[in-house]
Amino acid sequence: MPKKLSYFNLNGLAEPIRYILHYTNQEFEDVRHDVYSWPDPTVKATLPYGQLPVYEEDGRVLTQSLAIAKYVARGTDLVPTDPWKNAVIESIVFTLIDYFKSVVPSVREADPVKCAELTKEVIEKNIPFYFSKFNKHLEDNGGFLSGKLSWGDFVLCGVVEASDMFLGIDLSKDYPAVRTLVQHIRNLPGVKEYIKSIGPYSIDLARFNL
Amino acid sequence: MPKKLSYFNLNGLAEPIRYILHYTNQEFEDVRHDVYSWPDPTVKATLPYGQLPVYEEDGRVLTQSLAIAKYVARGTDLVPTDPWKNAVIESIVFTLIDYFKSVVPSVREADPVKCAELTKEVIEKNIPFYFSKFNKHLEDNGGFLSGKLSWGDFVLCGVVEASDMFLGIDLSKDYPAVRTLVQHIRNLPGVKEYIKSIGPYSIDLARFNL
Repeated sequence: MPKKLSYFNLNGLAEPIRYILHYTNQEFEDVRHDVYSWPDPTVKATLPYGQLPVYEEDGRVLTQSLAIAKYVARGTDLVPTDPWKNAVIESIVFTLIDYFKSVVPSVREADPVKCAELTKEVIEKNIPFYFSKFNKHLEDNGGFLSGKLSWGDFVLCGVVEASDMFLGIDLSKDYPAVRTLVQHIRNLPGVKEYIKSIGPYSIDLARFNL
Repeated sequence: MPKKLSYFNLNGLAEPIRYILHYTNQEFEDVRHDVYSWPDPTVKATLPYGQLPVYEEDGRVLTQSLAIAKYVARGTDLVPTDPWKNAVIESIVFTLIDYFKSVVPSVREADPVKCAELTKEVIEKNIPFYFSKFNKHLEDNGGFLSGKLSWGDFVLCGVVEASDMFLGIDLSKDYPAVRTLVQHIRNLPGVKEYIKSIGPYSIDLARFNL
């Protein structure tokens, strides 16, 4: 059952999927497109909605990072059997994405003055609003989105890591439960070796055209 | 097990949840806040992330419309047991929301000239891009997101209805498979009687402050 995950040579929306695949010991082809030469029209034309990431398995194609993350976690203990726990994980994950979408305009802003303004607003308003609540939620739920490690915790880790890279910050320094969870995931078997093998990510926003 | 769904007196993100609750014959308290006087600070302060809709059951609170829609559909045949089918439904639903988020700036734009420009772009670019693909997907999948009626089809119906109301259009007129699915859902037992009981929605964008 050959598996292939295609995304940019960045962490971003696909890194939680890569982490889950490594942690659950699933072999996959890790295809990475150069983010600075995107959009590549020949690749883009092959994508169902023109977007990455895309996951392929047995010739079938799946889009949308959250659908992929949850799918590759199926049948493992990263997906709880209790419907309410599943719903809570999904609700926090969707809220994480709401937050992350508020980061995107600053990343895409070409004017450096406007970019700095947008970044300031994210750092001073959006991050405290969302992450004080996420931190409290983790404290109230045993350090995870729902009592024990789930696919949603990997998404939280990925959102923090991508925020750090795109905004040049250390997001979790003021949110100890978030920091503990991110460090826990980065030290999981499979994930730890993967992180060591790829080294740190970096981004030059001036060359970035997503 | 008392259930309560709180949203605005609009269709929007909560209407698919209301449809699923009526179709699956679940009693619930249908709380509606006046959209024109929103944000109501006393209500907003009680919401986990300041956002509607919120679903409550046995004193537990769930946010995020998609998490709620899927949760209230649990245990019915609106959620397939096959993980790939579930993932396909989720991927289309997330893409529907990507489309719908592209509608929001025109709805929120106070300047009527800018609002008209944004609306034109949604109608001439975004709707053809997304809905030609959604229509083809329905044609290829027996008229539904995944072969038979699921919770995701209700979300598609809700997105079309909300687009029609906010943009003053008849979105599905050029997308026959979309139109057939929307009409199918509006005529389901429980949904049909509910729609008749509430009458059509309307919105005055000039009084709208979301």
